[in-house]
Order: sequence, then C-alpha cells, then structure tokens
Amino acid sequence: MGIMFVVLRPGSGKADLRRVLRRAVGAGCRGRVLADAENPTVAVSGETSKLEPSGFQVLPGVREVLAVGRLAPQAPAGRRPAPAVVEVAGGKVRIGGDRFTVIAGPCVVESEKSLLRIARGVKKAGAHLLRGGAFKPRTSPYCFQGLGEAGLKALAAARAETGLPIVTEALDQRSLELVYEYADVIQIGARNMQNYALLKEAGRLAKPIMLKRGISATIDEWLMSAEYLLAEGNSRVILCERGIRTFSGHTRNTLDLNAVCVARGLSRLPVIVDPSHGTGVASAVVPMARAAAALPSHGIMVEVHDRPGEALCDGHQALRPAEFADLMRDLAAMSRVCGYRL
Amino acid sequence: MGIMFVVLRPGSGKADLRRVLRRAVGAGCRGRVLADAENPTVAVSGETSKLEPSGFQVLPGVREVLAVGRLAPQAPAGRRPAPAVVEVAGGKVRIGGDRFTVIAGPCVVESEKSLLRIARGVKKAGAHLLRGGAFKPRTSPYCFQGLGEAGLKALAAARAETGLPIVTEALDQRSLELVYEYADVIQIGARNMQNYALLKEAGRLAKPIMLKRGISATIDEWLMSAEYLLAEGNSRVILCERGIRTFSGHTRNTLDLNAVCVARGLSRLPVIVDPSHGTGVASAVVPMARAAAALPSHGIMVEVHDRPGEALCDGHQALRPAEFADLMRDLAAMSRVCGYRL
Amino acid sequence: MGIMFVVLRPGSGKADLRRVLRRAVGAGCRGRVLADAENPTVAVSGETSKLEPSGFQVLPGVREVLAVGRLAPQAPAGRRPAPAVVEVAGGKVRIGGDRFTVIAGPCVVESEKSLLRIARGVKKAGAHLLRGGAFKPRTSPYCFQGLGEAGLKALAAARAETGLPIVTEALDQRSLELVYEYADVIQIGARNMQNYALLKEAGRLAKPIMLKRGISATIDEWLMSAEYLLAEGNSRVILCERGIRTFSGHTRNTLDLNAVCVARGLSRLPVIVDPSHGTGVASAVVPMARAAAALPSHGIMVEVHDRPGEALCDGHQALRPAEFADLMRDLAAMSRVCGYRL
Amino acid sequence: MGIMFVVLRPGSGKADLRRVLRRAVGAGCRGRVLADAENPTVAVSGETSKLEPSGFQVLPGVREVLAVGRLAPQAPAGRRPAPAVVEVAGGKVRIGGDRFTVIAGPCVVESEKSLLRIARGVKKAGAHLLRGGAFKPRTSPYCFQGLGEAGLKALAAARAETGLPIVTEALDQRSLELVYEYADVIQIGARNMQNYALLKEAGRLAKPIMLKRGISATIDEWLMSAEYLLAEGNSRVILCERGIRTFSGHTRNTLDLNAVCVARGLSRLPVIVDPSHGTGVASAVVPMARAAAALPSHGIMVEVHDRPGEALCDGHQALRPAEFADLMRDLAAMSRVCGYRL
Repeated sequence: MGIMFVVLRPGSGKADLRRVLRRAVGAGCRGRVLADAENPTVAVSGETSKLEPSGFQVLPGVREVLAVGRLAPQAPAGRRPAPAVVEVAGGKVRIGGDRFTVIAGPCVVESEKSLLRIARGVKKAGAHLLRGGAFKPRTSPYCFQGLGEAGLKALAAARAETGLPIVTEALDQRSLELVYEYADVIQIGARNMQNYALLKEAGRLAKPIMLKRGISATIDEWLMSAEYLLAEGNSRVILCERGIRTFSGHTRNTLDLNAVCVARGLSRLPVIVDPSHGTGVASAVVPMARAAAALPSHGIMVEVHDRPGEALCDGHQALRPAEFADLMRDLAAMSRVCGYRL
Repeated sequence: MGIMFVVLRPGSGKADLRRVLRRAVGAGCRGRVLADAENPTVAVSGETSKLEPSGFQVLPGVREVLAVGRLAPQAPAGRRPAPAVVEVAGGKVRIGGDRFTVIAGPCVVESEKSLLRIARGVKKAGAHLLRGGAFKPRTSPYCFQGLGEAGLKALAAARAETGLPIVTEALDQRSLELVYEYADVIQIGARNMQNYALLKEAGRLAKPIMLKRGISATIDEWLMSAEYLLAEGNSRVILCERGIRTFSGHTRNTLDLNAVCVARGLSRLPVIVDPSHGTGVASAVVPMARAAAALPSHGIMVEVHDRPGEALCDGHQALRPAEFADLMRDLAAMSRVCGYRL
Repeated sequence: MGIMFVVLRPGSGKADLRRVLRRAVGAGCRGRVLADAENPTVAVSGETSKLEPSGFQVLPGVREVLAVGRLAPQAPAGRRPAPAVVEVAGGKVRIGGDRFTVIAGPCVVESEKSLLRIARGVKKAGAHLLRGGAFKPRTSPYCFQGLGEAGLKALAAARAETGLPIVTEALDQRSLELVYEYADVIQIGARNMQNYALLKEAGRLAKPIMLKRGISATIDEWLMSAEYLLAEGNSRVILCERGIRTFSGHTRNTLDLNAVCVARGLSRLPVIVDPSHGTGVASAVVPMARAAAALPSHGIMVEVHDRPGEALCDGHQALRPAEFADLMRDLAAMSRVCGYRL
Repeated sequence: MGIMFVVLRPGSGKADLRRVLRRAVGAGCRGRVLADAENPTVAVSGETSKLEPSGFQVLPGVREVLAVGRLAPQAPAGRRPAPAVVEVAGGKVRIGGDRFTVIAGPCVVESEKSLLRIARGVKKAGAHLLRGGAFKPRTSPYCFQGLGEAGLKALAAARAETGLPIVTEALDQRSLELVYEYADVIQIGARNMQNYALLKEAGRLAKPIMLKRGISATIDEWLMSAEYLLAEGNSRVILCERGIRTFSGHTRNTLDLNAVCVARGLSRLPVIVDPSHGTGVASAVVPMARAAAALPSHGIMVEVHDRPGEALCDGHQALRPAEFADLMRDLAAMSRVCGYRL
C-alpha cells in the first residue's frame, strides 16, 4: 500500500484533475484532490505499486509525479518474511544476525591439487566457507572460462577433506543444475544480477543463494532482484556487495560500503562484502575487509591464492595465505569491540 | 599480436628482470630488456592477449604494466571479418554502410489490435522495421512481463499486414528458441549484454542479432560481448547504444553518442541508437534522434505509442504517431546533407 | 511557491503529525493533514524553497519527504527574466534564439603570431567568435598556465584584424579584472562552476558570461550557478555543456547532449556545446558538433589549431583549419533543415 | 624522470619513427626505437612530465601513447618532502602517523551560544578539534551562507573555552585572509579543490590546510591539487575524502574508502575521512566512521548537532551528542586492535 502525489501546474483546470482521478480509480486506487492554487495535487493511495508514474506524467497539466519508495521486498503476498539468518549445509554454518562469516578461496579452481593446498590454508586460518569458480564469466570469449564439472568435483574433494561448505557460481540454467548438485551456497554473479530467468530457476532450488550486486545496480534494483528469488519461494538469500563502477582509475571498482549500511536498513537479508573484486588491488583488500567488519557487515568473501603470479584469473587481487591468516587474526581481535561473532 | 611494457622500479636488480623475462617466455612471448636507470623495462611481444597483466604485477620490483589495447574483435582466427552491412529478412532491409535504418514500435506488445494500429502508423511514416517486446525484463517480479508467444504471434500478424520485418527481444535460452521462430532480428537487451550463455546460443543462430550496450558497459566490454556472437559463427551483429547510467536526474540515462563515434572507429559492425531508453523523456527523443542521424549513426530504434498514457510500460518516453511522422520528415531532409540514405 | 509532502510511517500518532505541522507553520508555510492509514501525510505549501527537507526528516515518525522541484531560476524577485538572446560586442553577435553560433580558436594562446594565423583561418571559414585561453587552469602546477595579459593582448590584436569578438576564461578575481578589459565574452570554466566568489564578481560586470558546466554537476546545480550571476544583475548568461565524467575510457569525457535538451526546457538561457573537451578526441569532434547542431543547440565552441602536434595544450582534440572549414560547410547545409540560422 | 612508449601501427615507416624521435629530442628527452614488426615503438625517457602525450598522438602512424604514472607529488624540486605528521596549533594536536584524529562540530556556526553548547559536548566526548563553517558554499544563492566573521569569532570563543583548535573553511581569497587570522586548520572545500588561485594563496600561508577531495576528482587530480599547496611552500597538508558522486540514490554521495587506501600508498600526506558528507544520512555515519578507523585512516571529521531538526544546514547527516560520545567509545575500543592512537 503506497501513496503517490500527482502535482499539476498552476492554473490547471477541473478537467485536468478529473483525468488524473479517473486514471487512479481505473487502476483500483483512490484519488483525493488537494486544492492548492500554485500546486494543485491529486493524492493517489492504494495498490500504487501496480501504477506506472508515467501513466500520469503524460496527462495534460501534470508537472511532476512523486511516489513514496514503492519497494516492497521480502514479503511476497502470503509468504513469511525471509529469515534474517541463512542456514548453510544443514546448519553447519549460519550467515546473518550477529555472525561475521568469512568465505575464502581462489578466484577460479585451477586444479584439484592447487585448490586443496589453498583450502587447507584458509581452513587452518579460520575461514567458514570455501569459494572457487568452476564456471567463470569472462569478458572475452577467448579467456579461460573455468574447469566446469571437474572444478565442482575438486571443490567437493576439498570440502570432504576440510569440512568447509562451498560457494560457487552458476552462470546459466545449464550450469545451475550442476552447481546445485555440488554447492552449499550458489552464487549468482554481478553480470547476472538481472538475468531474471536464472533468478527464477534459482528461486525454486532448496539451496541458499548469494546474490552479488550488479556493477551499476542501484540498491533498489538489487533488492528487487532478490525479490525474484523470494517470490519463487527461496528465502535463503544472501546479498553480496562487490564494488560499483565509477571513474576510479587506481582501483578496479569502488567498494560501496555506504550501500551495505543502506541495504541492512531496508532489508532483513544478510549482506556480505567482497573486497577482492571491490578493490581489485591486493594491498587494499585487507584494510577494506577490516572496514567491512567494523560496520559491521555480515561477512566477507576474499580471494586467496598461494601463487598469485601464476593465477589464471585476478591474481593481482588475491591475498597470500599468510596475509589471509593475519587478516583473520585482525577480525578476531576486532570482533570483541565491533559487536560480531566470528 | 600485441605488446606490453613491464616497467620496474629504479634500482631493480637483474634477478627482477630475469623473473619478468622468464614469465614472458613461459607464456610463449618474447621479452626484451630496455636498460633505463630510472625505469628499467621489459617489452613483451607476441600473443599478449593470453597474458594476464597481473601475472607481472605481482612480481617483485614491478611498478606498472602497460599494454596496447588488447582488443582484437571481429576476426576470430580463421574466419572472415564480420560484414559491414547486415542483411535482414532475406535482404529486404540492410543495416549498415551508408544506410540509416529506422526501427519503431511500442515498448511492449499489449494486444494484437493495438500493435496493428501502431504498426500501420509507423509503416506509413516510413519506418523500416517494427519493434515490440513479447518478453520483457522487468526490475520487479510483480510487473507485467510481456505476452510471451501471443506477443510474438501479434508481431507476425503485424508483419504480414505491413511487410515490416520485426525486431524483438529474447531473454533467455527458452525465449530465444521461440523468438528465433518469429523474429527477423533478435534483440539481446542491456541487462543481458554479459549473459554469455545466451550470447553463445544466439551466436549459433541464423538470424541477425541486435546487441544493446549494458547500462555501464565500457565500449571494450560491448565489443567483447559482440565477439561472443562472432566467435560462434554469427557475423550478422548490430550494436545498439541505449544510454549509460550516470548521476543524471532529469533523464533516465545518459545517451552516449561519443560511444557511437568510438565504436564506429573500432569496429565494422553497424551501430544504431535508442533515444527512447537513452533519454527516458519523450521531449528529448526527437532532438536526440536527430543528433544520432547527424553523426551519422546507422539508425535509430524509437518507441511509438498512440496512447502513451495507457501504455503498460515506459509510456513517458514514447512518441505519438504524429511526432514520429514529423521525425521521419526531419530525417529525410537531413539525409541529403548528412550523408546517409534513409 | 512550492509544495512538499511529509509522509509518515503507518501508525504514527497525532503528536507526530502535530510536530510536522508546527515546523511548517514555524517556517511561515501552511500544513494540511492528509489522513491516510498507511501513509499519513502532511502537505506543506508556501515558500518551501526556504525549508530544508532535513528539518522534517529528523522528526519522529517521518518516513520520507517529497518535494516538487524547488528550482526557481532566472527570475530573482523583482527583476525581469533573463533575455533569451544574449548580445555580444554591442550587438555585433547575438547568441540564442534561432541562431547557431560558432566559437573557434586554439585551446590556449601560444603567441600572437600563431593566434593570428589560426584566427584568420577560422574567420575565413565563418566562425562568429574567437576563443583562446590566456589564463589556463591546469591540473598540475608544473604545466604551462597561459601567457596572462600578453595572451589577452594577442587576442585583442586578433580581434582588431579579423573583427571577431573574443571569448576567454577568467580564473579568479585577479584575472577577472584583466579579462573584463579585453574580452567580449568572459568564460567561467568547469572547475570554477561552483566558485561562488568568482560568480558573484562576474555577476556584477557588464559583459556576457559563458558558464561551463562542471565535470559532474547536475543540471540543477548548473542552473543554480547561473542564478548566482543573474542574482547579481548580470542577465547575459550563456550555458556551455562540455562533457561529464563517467567511466568512459576511449574519450576524455562523455558529452551530455541529453543535458542540453533538458536545460533548454528548464531555462531561457542559450546553451552551447563544446565537443572538443566533451570528447577529447579529434575524430569525434566533427560528428558531435554536427549532433549538437541537429538538436539544435545554440552553438558550439571548438578548438582549432594549425599545428596540433605542437600545441602546448590539448592538441589531440583540436581540428585542423581545413577540417573546421568542412565542418562549417556541414553546419551551413544542415541549417536549412534543422531550423537554425548560422 | 619518467618513461613513455609511443607505439606505432604495423607497417609504419622510418619517416614516422623519425618524426617521433625528433619530437622527443626536441623536448629534451631521449628516444630509442624498439624494432617490432607488429608494434614498432619509440621509448621516450627523461623529463617526460613536461611532454604532452597528445604531441605524439597526432603524429602520423601513432597508434597509442602509454606513460608510466607521471605523478610526482610531494617533492617540488629542491624542497624537502612533506612531513608525514602535520602539527596543528603549535604541536597541540598532531595529525598523521599512527594517530587517529577526530574533528567534530556543527556543519555551520549558527550562533555563539549553540556552538558553545555543541563544542562542550564534543570536547567532553574526546574530540581533538572543533569544526564549524563561517563561510558556506551553497548551491543556491538564496540559501543561508554563514555568519562570516561573526562565525569565526564564535569559533574563537569556543576554542578559548574548550581548548579545541578549530578547523573552518575559506571560500575565496577574501575569506582566506579572515580565516587565516582565526583558524588553526584552514579547510579548502570540495567545490574549490581545483580553484588554483585559492590553492596558491593558501600555499603561502603558515597554517595547515585540509584539502577536501572534489566530488568527482580522481586521486591523481586530488594529489595534484595538494601539489599546488606544496609547490608554494606549505607542506602541512591534510587530505580529506568526503564522498564522490555516483548513481547512488539512498545516500548523498558514495564514501570512497578505496581512495583512502590508494592515497595512503601514493602519498605521505595524512588522509582523513568525512562520513557525514560522504553518506549524507545520519544512520550511516557511525558505521562508516568505524570503517574509516578500521582501515585505518588518519582520522575523521563528523558533524554533530544537538538539535538536528533545527540545523540551518545538513541536519539530516548530523550526529546527536550522545551518538557521538558512543562513537568515541567505539573508536577508543577499536584503537587497541586496529593499530592507531586516539
């Protein structure tokens, strides 16, 4: 239930007002005239989320249409609201609430051997989940696009050995089926944040989804994409801020921690932060990870690689295992004063 | 064949240079040292498109990695370059070269009756193709998402009556199959510009593809997405600039005509302009359409609706049929002096 | 006279409403309650331009404050509105209305000799005014910053020979006095668009001012800066769009022709376009200049240099005299069909 | 001493190379040819900071000009580098190094009485400096622009009572003289970051300068503006990040903590953070202030007001004194684990 204000130009006549009222009523809403010589207004209330403001904007005499934020997420009619804490792997890990969850691993799974090496390192340092891409969206069709199912198998092997649940990305309907079989959390990447077909399919699955923010998505668009998942019945949704595109030159993206604060205010969904993509520069990852903890957000996802110079993808933004272990120590020390449980 | 310059810090030793050289050679490239006290450099030449600059950035002593634009589009190895003119509907319409092509119609197909009414209008005014969405990507899952196949059938009926080939959007693999059956040109929308699975499937089809630029895609990313189509064998690709996201408040997007000039310089693919989404304001559509013609670009795609106040989508940016007819007269008059054939 | 809508949260009590009303009345405005269970609202009307929305936002129960665009430019109380046509050099040139004015010349005055050479060229090709910087704002303190008064003297000499009125930039209060003595139109550059002290001083001068849009200024901010000039009594104000900062990589800025359309709708002030800074790439200057004419805007300002490789500033975006002459021929041919007088 | 690589197109001839060499030598630099069939290159070394890349770009055959970051800040020839710690008020406060400095106070000085009330509160909570604007840059000429010298006197009175040194903004050459008399740190605001005349004057004064980043300034531009101060001899420069303009809707700006990390890497100057302007939303100020401390940065500047609903400026982003006191407790608790001294 929202409200819209259709403000007309001074001197608009009764016929103009009547046309506005008629459209409001025609859409099942209620319209009331606010007589005001300078700014005659019709207040339209009811199910305004179904009204296009443009339907009023094109009417004669209309100057501006103002609407109270029409966002209504996390509560599709007749469903319970999404939980504030998302259970992963049968409750082995919980994301949200007062917990700060750390997801770590290589950008892309390069081989089972190298993955195991990295997985052991991040486990030892205290990570809660293991990340690694088996299907990689790449700007160029000629770049390495991931190992596919072999990558998923390597992730499963690493889980078997370390006990860490795994987060990995699904790119399309086809990979989604495979990823569903192996992953504990299914990642929808930034490029796919508005791939609605994929969102709808993911919304029907019984696994938690981590939805990354598109590179220039507004917070409202991000929450609306989450709503695609919720509307299909999957309420285990985790949001992930990963940097927006600005004019920045020294960093790959601009990690938008403002957005984390705002999203937490607008939504019950847990919000984690990816400082690796958000900065694209290894030297900025640790400070920004600490910043994400200080807010606090609900966790971070960081790229770790033991041989960044040989990484097949994004080695410049990967932490070395020792740097990651130092970061984990920082996060543990901060937890006492920043109000989260690591 | 590209070239990269790996610049080291002053005082870097021979070991540092050797490490850089080794990596260059290891990737099948050639490295040459440029002795320079202040900026010792290794010039790396060969197949540098397969090298990640980050592989050098993480080496000790490296200060900066500079690379000549590594973009190599429109010529997958062993294929002929994409044609500069795209044939549509068996040559009935040609897009590119010195032609200026006008695509017009409603944002979304609302009913066969209303579509026919609009189609007759734009045909009479001189449009070359008819547009109209049957599958609509919508930010909110609760908004009207198009008539689906019924919309495609209405488009086919309008084509049968007016003779205008049709352009309509495919959203995902499922709708792509349906759209392929009906459309003359398949549109990939801005939100899907980096939906690589969809691009690959579209790249295997024997119909021209119109690839809209993502809302914050760089020109290089846009051309790389086109390359996904070309790499699969579909060389009939038309680019469409539709506005980028900036801090603009009065317009929905910022129509980026600079990008049209640049893309024409970098690529042989035809580039058309969508001033309806690019501005989001009906009063700016005509001037910006004229601007697109003056460059000249290879055409425009504009939204036309005879009852914009009742449009189910984006009525505020639709031209009325009479406004569209005036625009067509302008474009015809300009053609003589702006060097295009309408 | 504006209107604001202070929307409260559902369930807000009478005390909340009363607090809102009290503040409205305290500011000399009128408040009326709109009873609406879901969205109780107070409509505040009167001199709302003096009200800070934040004064309401911080009150308990307030959900959102919506205001009709509070911009009221070009008519300081008790003054006549700014003229739509700006007279330059005693009426020798008029900018605005149905005229399309061309301003051309080097980025910076390098010597009297080279300026005269260029000035003769642009005069012959049909330019209406000569541009050239004597005081240059430079990002680095170590770059060439212009010839100062010697540059102004060279401009005066070029005017004496060619008859072209001159446009040149003032950087600060000190240079403003000098520029005032020599220039026919005083330019306030993009970096100084919100240098209010400079605007106020320029507002007191009896010479036309060309106000460039700041690199990330909204249209409202741009018009408000113009208002600083108008408020001081100088109504001969020309707006100049020169490109905004986005994520663009191939061009220096993104020339925002959308903004030209919008500014023309919101303001009576003439709006001209600078495709040289707006693109930063010589090959894009001519197409974008043509686009600016097709809208139409009220003119263009372009950089011309006969030896761009030796230019002390921005040679990469300068047209050669022959290219400029070709552009003038294009603009003349387009004038007949685009509705402007050259 | 820098290096540039002028890359020519394949097939460029000796004449093309010779022209590049000649220009390099003409500018007092050294040029060496790198024979490479696909990418013939001239490496230009020496004082490249005086070379415009465009001088090469316009030469025939040139494809691209790559330059190693030509930024050379903080060390004007013959001067000592800027100190890493800035002494304020005769060493009473030091900004930089391992200190975290907190500057707090109202956006604008509204009256001596209200300022004293707020100053006592922030002093008690542990702030190190008092902020408050006496000269306010306002987008609209019709808004309250500060109390002028009366505001400065009120600040001096508050300093006398609380012992807090004061930070206040100078807008132009005139206010700079007054502010110099009263302030302990002179603020140059975001709108004036490229007001070079003001920077030069401030660079001649014997007081520390806090230079805010322009709303869309790159980090390089920001450091170059600092260089204007350094070049005039004032080496006590503090940088202040205060949010950049993006497409954000829920927040006024996007606080760019990435930039703080980068600026600290490129420069020795202290970098503090303004979460009040950087978010524009009171509820986000505390989390973002904590994030700034976690990096760590060298401090924060926050707006505090005891009656935000009545504030004459920016009340929506002000903390209440009790919220500020809580923040100070958080910052003290974090200091032990985040490696700074409060």
